[in-house]
Amino acid sequence: MTAVSDVQATIAELRRTVSDLHRELTRYGLVVWTAGNVSARVPDHDLLVIKPSGVSYDDLTPESMVVCDLDGEVVEGEHAPSSDTAAAAYVYRHMPEVGGVVHTHSTYACAWAARAEPIPCVLTMMADEFGGDIPVGPFALIGDDSIGRGIVETLKDSNSRAVLMAGHGPFTIGTDAREAVKAAVMLEDVARSVHVSRQLGEPKPIDPADVASLFDRYQNVYGQR
Amino acid sequence: MTAVSDVQATIAELRRTVSDLHRELTRYGLVVWTAGNVSARVPDHDLLVIKPSGVSYDDLTPESMVVCDLDGEVVEGEHAPSSDTAAAAYVYRHMPEVGGVVHTHSTYACAWAARAEPIPCVLTMMADEFGGDIPVGPFALIGDDSIGRGIVETLKDSNSRAVLMAGHGPFTIGTDAREAVKAAVMLEDVARSVHVSRQLGEPKPIDPADVASLFDRYQNVYGQR
Amino acid sequence: MTAVSDVQATIAELRRTVSDLHRELTRYGLVVWTAGNVSARVPDHDLLVIKPSGVSYDDLTPESMVVCDLDGEVVEGEHAPSSDTAAAAYVYRHMPEVGGVVHTHSTYACAWAARAEPIPCVLTMMADEFGGDIPVGPFALIGDDSIGRGIVETLKDSNSRAVLMAGHGPFTIGTDAREAVKAAVMLEDVARSVHVSRQLGEPKPIDPADVASLFDRYQNVYGQR
Amino acid sequence: MTAVSDVQATIAELRRTVSDLHRELTRYGLVVWTAGNVSARVPDHDLLVIKPSGVSYDDLTPESMVVCDLDGEVVEGEHAPSSDTAAAAYVYRHMPEVGGVVHTHSTYACAWAARAEPIPCVLTMMADEFGGDIPVGPFALIGDDSIGRGIVETLKDSNSRAVLMAGHGPFTIGTDAREAVKAAVMLEDVARSVHVSRQLGEPKPIDPADVASLFDRYQNVYGQR
Repeated sequence: MTAVSDVQATIAELRRTVSDLHRELTRYGLVVWTAGNVSARVPDHDLLVIKPSGVSYDDLTPESMVVCDLDGEVVEGEHAPSSDTAAAAYVYRHMPEVGGVVHTHSTYACAWAARAEPIPCVLTMMADEFGGDIPVGPFALIGDDSIGRGIVETLKDSNSRAVLMAGHGPFTIGTDAREAVKAAVMLEDVARSVHVSRQLGEPKPIDPADVASLFDRYQNVYGQR
Repeated sequence: MTAVSDVQATIAELRRTVSDLHRELTRYGLVVWTAGNVSARVPDHDLLVIKPSGVSYDDLTPESMVVCDLDGEVVEGEHAPSSDTAAAAYVYRHMPEVGGVVHTHSTYACAWAARAEPIPCVLTMMADEFGGDIPVGPFALIGDDSIGRGIVETLKDSNSRAVLMAGHGPFTIGTDAREAVKAAVMLEDVARSVHVSRQLGEPKPIDPADVASLFDRYQNVYGQR
Repeated sequence: MTAVSDVQATIAELRRTVSDLHRELTRYGLVVWTAGNVSARVPDHDLLVIKPSGVSYDDLTPESMVVCDLDGEVVEGEHAPSSDTAAAAYVYRHMPEVGGVVHTHSTYACAWAARAEPIPCVLTMMADEFGGDIPVGPFALIGDDSIGRGIVETLKDSNSRAVLMAGHGPFTIGTDAREAVKAAVMLEDVARSVHVSRQLGEPKPIDPADVASLFDRYQNVYGQR
Repeated sequence: MTAVSDVQATIAELRRTVSDLHRELTRYGLVVWTAGNVSARVPDHDLLVIKPSGVSYDDLTPESMVVCDLDGEVVEGEHAPSSDTAAAAYVYRHMPEVGGVVHTHSTYACAWAARAEPIPCVLTMMADEFGGDIPVGPFALIGDDSIGRGIVETLKDSNSRAVLMAGHGPFTIGTDAREAVKAAVMLEDVARSVHVSRQLGEPKPIDPADVASLFDRYQNVYGQR
């Protein structure tokens, strides 16, 4: 009984967290209409909480979030889950350290993705947050494990918490949903700054040793601890 | 009596819907000042509901919307209707499946329109929503059926719900006004992403078979059903 | 007495109108910090109402507006007037049909101004609102009549209600302050759309006869009459 | 006692000022997530007030601000200070006329910084506010005095209140925190306008004598005195 009510309390809290975090996607202009979503792993259970499919950001509530198992099947919820549920579920199955996944079609990240071109690490903010270039994943159709597998294979040996799926758009991961949302916000910011910089010349790459040093400091010293 | 009051109730509801939907045009930055409008067909009647001409978005109310017949003549309303009424009416006369028409001068769609260049389908979101390239319609002056005819001739054999009228700007259609607004929002988003992508190289076209598969899935599986 | 109280009532109303219209400059992102202003002529009097210099848009009130004569000298008000007062006053002295003047440093208009390059008329919205290309005025330093004279000499034989002062930024005029603000909003919109269009090729100029026809219709038929 | 309570009152006021000024960074889109900060010198004391590290702008309060000495050590406050505290402290130690320092990663300033390219003075607004080109400082890693020293060495003989740290982003200074925030806002505005202008050709430099004249007037005549 206790275990059951514990997981119910966790799910109730994650429903609110996931619902609320979509406001960061709209605040930073990463999504239009209904095109983007946040999900969270339910810790210690083979479950995830995700946005319902095709529902407006204005209409999201904790109650409208959908709970699925890690095969993407609905366990609890009145709505159909995001059509990216299978991709997110694949990530949770194969990357146990991941607690949150975000997908958007943010403009500048999509622009690099449409050319299937990685974003070079030319700003300290990129080194801090992503530890190097933002890599490109394969072009993959929705409907099976292709997208999830492309995300995992691209990110598993990378410092980066963001991948540009070719011809599609960005997916980001984090230790929890908030960290994945932060990565989505920072990704679009650096995708834009580096794009703008390259419009008028070649930005200077940061030395790999400096990238490593910046990444290490930011992951271990920045913020409140 | 019943039929009359039914249509009055429908019109009252559409006045509110059409008035409210203009807020999506301003929210997504698709319009400035008074330059863009939404209209809706009154189902089963040869009538449409449209924005009044030159009235600020802040001042729109259900009461200020104008009801016209499908020749564009005012049937009910205290204001002159949008100067795009004739174009919308032509679309409703010739495309019975269309329930909503939207016209904006959104920046990136207009940029492609000013070059009379179709937007190539290089992102899955474009394949999902538009089923291929966004086509260009003819340059046409306001004042007769030229604009309406250009829209209909361009869209009637296309998957696309959006047309870029050359030297002018985008028109979008939908099964209802909300769907036409959604198409206007998605159009500007992909017009921007593809523009940005092409600034630094050539985005990769999506294989036509993949476009067809994505379009089919999105039209039939996405969202709540 | 009556005449005096009439003009006082007119000034009170214009103080509110001019103060409020600055909200359109911030809404459309035409200004940052305090860099831009609206003024209005007091009809039938050699007076104008203008923003105080260097005061934040958040802090503007009807009371903080400044009344000046058409030599730019303060007649009423506790603040120093905008440093563009002399330019606006010159316009009111030499263009009796002008009731409002707006100056901003909006991004895209400034970008054309920094190259001293007119904006070509390639969109119907430009033909409607400006009746042709947006012309460039001379580079002129602040401090004497140079800016005002440059505006007047550039606009007096033009359909355009906007001028790009070289190396400086846009000034717009209108029959009243609201019309001048509208011109500033529309100018930035077309400056941006045409810029974006030209980034990837050459937009097609609209035939001068079509420009004339569109301008005539828009000035005489559009809106509520 | 009086001196102690005076400095406490000053610190209390600066905590509020610094906390509130971060709203200008978000309003003008100069920062995302937590990436940017404002600090202020405590006049006549070897102290500064600065944003806590990694705290969201929504959550900033006067109480959460951190008071440090000019070696960057925390004197008062429950949070770890911004990771840019050492850089700001260095500036306050070496430039006694500086009362405020701001650091952002605003998009267009970062784009110039990534190319290590100064922004040429081609708009009167740049001459007014910055008195010439925006200079570039060295690439410097966080963790010692390198960033602070780079800022001071670049700005000490310049009219400019802004420096683009190569591969990193902008720092701005002012006589107080509000002036430093203003410089950050104006910097991004001119960085964007000049970038956009150069996308389609070469903007014309302003004659150095005119730059000097504009800078002198703006520093001495503009605004309320």
